[in-house]
Amino acid sequence: MKRVVGSPGTWSGMALRLSQCVFAAASNFALHSAFGYSDYSAFFYLNVVLILQLMWSLGLACKDIFALRNKKDLHTEDNLSFVVTTDFVVAIFTFSGACASASVAIFFMWDVHFCGVYSQLACRQFALSAILAFITWLLQAASSFSGFWLLVSFF
Amino acid sequence: MKRVVGSPGTWSGMALRLSQCVFAAASNFALHSAFGYSDYSAFFYLNVVLILQLMWSLGLACKDIFALRNKKDLHTEDNLSFVVTTDFVVAIFTFSGACASASVAIFFMWDVHFCGVYSQLACRQFALSAILAFITWLLQAASSFSGFWLLVSFF
Repeated sequence: MKRVVGSPGTWSGMALRLSQCVFAAASNFALHSAFGYSDYSAFFYLNVVLILQLMWSLGLACKDIFALRNKKDLHTEDNLSFVVTTDFVVAIFTFSGACASASVAIFFMWDVHFCGVYSQLACRQFALSAILAFITWLLQAASSFSGFWLLVSFF
Repeated sequence: MKRVVGSPGTWSGMALRLSQCVFAAASNFALHSAFGYSDYSAFFYLNVVLILQLMWSLGLACKDIFALRNKKDLHTEDNLSFVVTTDFVVAIFTFSGACASASVAIFFMWDVHFCGVYSQLACRQFALSAILAFITWLLQAASSFSGFWLLVSFF
């Protein structure tokens, strides 16, 4: 089995997946602690996307742990193609959610200064959630490229 | 020279670049026709990103035309690496701009219904600009993957 850092079935790959879970959960927690987040489409969309991200990363982290314990090879072409394709799709969704929520948070904070006027608007939680979502996306992109790099070596 | 559809120095590649220019220009035109777009960070950011996209696509379209007229081979490893890397960076910027502006436009239209209340708010132009930016991103992604596919064949 070829060892590429961050690819499926390796210790670094599992660490990446677990980090994605932690950051996606933290981002979602920050979002849920903000009162009335679901009134805004961008934050509601981010919530949906983060749940998708969490489920995908958690599933693959479990698969990595199983493969490492049982010394199973996950580097088959079919498995890699499926993981890499879904990884890219999930990465695009997470990035779009992060951008969308960041832009609305910036709109509240700097464009119309709603945060100062309406004290019940949880601007800090919105901003924190967007930043954590961006970190999740970076980790997800690292996983995607690592898997893609390995897939390319089959051709 | 290997022929990959949409890669640098091919007719399809040049057509893709010119389409990117047309859609980026149309998106920017829609944005500039909206009164007070620069008051909002998301739309101002989209404007900057679209100018970057337009310059990059126009430059590469000219390079493609030059290469096709003079039968010059643009498929060297150095040239491809540079083009593909910058293509991916530009694609990420364009996508982030499109997501950011789409989320603010949706916020105006459906979350707080500002479009009905404030008639001077050019919601239609904002929405049109975001849609055209998404199409530009799709075309840019096609160019990036085509170049990347060709680059992979060198390894």
